[in-house]
Amino acid sequence: MARSWWGWGNVEDAVRGAELDALLARARALAPGEPTGHEPPDVASLGIPAARLSPPPSLAALCSADPADRAAHAHGKAFRDVARNLLGDLPHVPDLVARPRAERDVVDLLDWCSGGRVAAIPYGGGSSVVGGIEPRFEDGRPAVTIDLTRLDRVLEVDPVSRAARIQAGVLGPHLEDQLRPHGLTLRHFPQSFEFSTLGGWLATRAGGHFATLATHIDDLVESMRVVTPSGVAESRRLPGSGAGPSPDRLFLGSEGALGIITEAWMRLRERPRWRAKASVRFADYAAAVAATRAVAQSGLHPANCRLLDAAEALVNAGVAVDGGVLVLAFESADHPVRASLERALELCRDHGGETPDEPADSDTASDTWRSSFLRMPYQRDALARHALIVETFETSCTWDGFDRLHRAVTEAARDAIRDVAGNGVVTCRFTHVYPDGPAPYFTVYAPGRWGAMVAQWDGIKTAVSEAIAAHGGTITHHHAVGRDHRPWYDRQRPGPFGAALTAAKAALDPAGVLNPGVLVPAP
Amino acid sequence: MARSWWGWGNVEDAVRGAELDALLARARALAPGEPTGHEPPDVASLGIPAARLSPPPSLAALCSADPADRAAHAHGKAFRDVARNLLGDLPHVPDLVARPRAERDVVDLLDWCSGGRVAAIPYGGGSSVVGGIEPRFEDGRPAVTIDLTRLDRVLEVDPVSRAARIQAGVLGPHLEDQLRPHGLTLRHFPQSFEFSTLGGWLATRAGGHFATLATHIDDLVESMRVVTPSGVAESRRLPGSGAGPSPDRLFLGSEGALGIITEAWMRLRERPRWRAKASVRFADYAAAVAATRAVAQSGLHPANCRLLDAAEALVNAGVAVDGGVLVLAFESADHPVRASLERALELCRDHGGETPDEPADSDTASDTWRSSFLRMPYQRDALARHALIVETFETSCTWDGFDRLHRAVTEAARDAIRDVAGNGVVTCRFTHVYPDGPAPYFTVYAPGRWGAMVAQWDGIKTAVSEAIAAHGGTITHHHAVGRDHRPWYDRQRPGPFGAALTAAKAALDPAGVLNPGVLVPAP
Repeated sequence: MARSWWGWGNVEDAVRGAELDALLARARALAPGEPTGHEPPDVASLGIPAARLSPPPSLAALCSADPADRAAHAHGKAFRDVARNLLGDLPHVPDLVARPRAERDVVDLLDWCSGGRVAAIPYGGGSSVVGGIEPRFEDGRPAVTIDLTRLDRVLEVDPVSRAARIQAGVLGPHLEDQLRPHGLTLRHFPQSFEFSTLGGWLATRAGGHFATLATHIDDLVESMRVVTPSGVAESRRLPGSGAGPSPDRLFLGSEGALGIITEAWMRLRERPRWRAKASVRFADYAAAVAATRAVAQSGLHPANCRLLDAAEALVNAGVAVDGGVLVLAFESADHPVRASLERALELCRDHGGETPDEPADSDTASDTWRSSFLRMPYQRDALARHALIVETFETSCTWDGFDRLHRAVTEAARDAIRDVAGNGVVTCRFTHVYPDGPAPYFTVYAPGRWGAMVAQWDGIKTAVSEAIAAHGGTITHHHAVGRDHRPWYDRQRPGPFGAALTAAKAALDPAGVLNPGVLVPAP
Repeated sequence: MARSWWGWGNVEDAVRGAELDALLARARALAPGEPTGHEPPDVASLGIPAARLSPPPSLAALCSADPADRAAHAHGKAFRDVARNLLGDLPHVPDLVARPRAERDVVDLLDWCSGGRVAAIPYGGGSSVVGGIEPRFEDGRPAVTIDLTRLDRVLEVDPVSRAARIQAGVLGPHLEDQLRPHGLTLRHFPQSFEFSTLGGWLATRAGGHFATLATHIDDLVESMRVVTPSGVAESRRLPGSGAGPSPDRLFLGSEGALGIITEAWMRLRERPRWRAKASVRFADYAAAVAATRAVAQSGLHPANCRLLDAAEALVNAGVAVDGGVLVLAFESADHPVRASLERALELCRDHGGETPDEPADSDTASDTWRSSFLRMPYQRDALARHALIVETFETSCTWDGFDRLHRAVTEAARDAIRDVAGNGVVTCRFTHVYPDGPAPYFTVYAPGRWGAMVAQWDGIKTAVSEAIAAHGGTITHHHAVGRDHRPWYDRQRPGPFGAALTAAKAALDPAGVLNPGVLVPAP
């Protein structure tokens, strides 16, 4: 398998042939695009400039100055990254890619960067969708991308407490492969699972498998080890503590600006033995939302509780419905969960939901949705090559404000799509739900113009971000802040907290080398 | 009702008469004490020095220089506080007690303090057990205690999202009284419930009602408003977010060192309609621990899961048993919970537990335990007046380390009790449990010597804190750090995190007036 330098995942898994034909037919029904596809440029043709710095001899063996390697580390995997790559638009490429083999290497790399005011960009699987790993700085200083994927081992397993000490650079599948012989699993499955790392999940507060309770990776953390230019921070393994503000919660979501996470003790669980799932159809979206709220507030804690609006249901689950489809699943390693599902279905019927006669261990709508979920990034790449804009954005808000936010965001998206692309579609699903509100996730399909797609998308993104901010949503529920969300993050973040975070960064990273411009202004 | 100046709660509720006789008889069986009780000193006889500063005219109406008022705010409510009060040992008394009536008053008070390098000590119900509200500073500067109990209203209720905006100075019962007409409850019941405030719970990361899931108040917070000398920090109302490190998590547990919490949006729930509880007896403590671990890892999420060791069961639940008693309870506002209890009991039987034939809605052992739980602080006061040392300490650790920690801590406590008091008892219960470990809570009963009880207790506390630290526990699971836990907190906290926290404090509180010496060294 070979990783694509410009798009998602493995080259061999790209959408082609009959799958591509069918995909294009479906997509053009939503958003008519250009008739012919474009080939990604040969990386050798991009004229990547030579590295502006050389590593010291002691670090040379860790570092690559290869242009293709550097180009592959220049951008994340958002639509705007893929679109720029397809156009060969790579103005900011790291000067070196360093691959530490041990924590000591990370310490030495940061020492070297701090000594020379070289930017250090921590890099896991590279799946950022917010410009979080892009060496784009106002002062244009040289940059080393520190790719942690060689730190990929499960170092220790504690079967009694159900926890493991895990190196941060491990990719999702390799992590689960190492836990499986112990009968344990982290059960954290972001959409990027195959091509993102534990350290990346922690640094960006990734959203995972569970729609309720442990929605973010945060709650699965027992302790962390973080290399900062001012020393290594290691928290104690504790199931819970009230000793001052949580040290881990400062580094969770720090996006490489405060330190480089090298390992963590993570809470694990046994694989589920009992499962029950069902999908519920609603003729009315408001009723579907009310039913979802009732389930979220019931204390039943479904593992999945994903409300697809009518467009989302049609596009990704193959279900034609007027209001929406609620996909429900319960799971447990300890006890049957059928009664929980039955009660959730009863709540749905109270709100006019059409429930299946007999809940089953499998469910067609949710199975269809699941397989398309994993395939989506590859499909996005194929559509981008045909000048189709396919991108997502997400937020969360309280239930009392959801209707207004949903209406405002949808209208802003439609207006912007009309302005920049003439026509298109915006769909909505809930990825996670809480007793006090949902996390709505929107997808946009719009026809692009080859060469203008990034500006088109930026127009849509700015409009929807303004609508989210105006209606009290968060600029991101689980996609991080990076460089792209900074304008809205700066408005959302309480001012004194911003001052505290800036001061904390100055204390930990006095030379200001760690991922400059992410979360706080570059010094 | 009148609050006791020297001890817990209301004067009228003190233990007396037949209750006192019975209590003394029980206690002396554990730890023979002195035959006669001592009267608390008259506060007028203490010679409290005059205040060393006067408020500006604009703040004078908020401030009290009354010696009795100041004496009542000088100490928290730990055993060592009560013992010092009983001896009239009050070397550090605030110069003024200020009672803001609005957030603007808090801002003005902090401005005044910052201008004059006057220490500002935020004060809720005054139930700190770690010296957190004590004006004890190396530099002996003047201090104003800011008593927030006039900010006691529920300002707004959102029944759709089940949340309310609540002023931080409200005491537990008054908070629940205001929520009750809305059919909602915070359901946060620390032992101090009657005499502690929302703001105090947030500032100290209080542990509450639920033994699993939302064990600390942290998870019930939707947003917070905090007055700092550098401005007011208000987070957005969000059910979940991944936008950078959580702002709320920096202020949760900040113990008044970073700002004064004035209000918060809190997540509420409906009152439980379904309940099931039972207690399980074990002949062997290790088997009881294993059963408790199985329940904690089952995903059944009991509301109560409190394992009492044999001594704790005898003293506080009136149950004679060799191994221990596990008190289990489930509750829900939405669905029956009997099946969950049945499964938990099955897990207990798998580990040799003796379960009741028929689980009931009430349970004698747990009911006895519950009523003694609320009465304990009053009993502690009565025993302290008879020179009996009654005090608790608590921690958490992973399951794999519990046996070693439990043995080491118990031995350290017994050795120290023997050294300082000749004989006595140490008991253990779990207050909260997690999939990866328990939160054990220890109680010490030992005979004191009038006049020497503080030094005696400090000897015991130092010994057990060293044992906790040596075995990887936290210095506190839910009693905060304050001034008394600082030596062990400083060792537990990752060094770079300490540097970040110190820098954050300097940014938020440049004059260093907020609760000096708590969490970080006074500047």
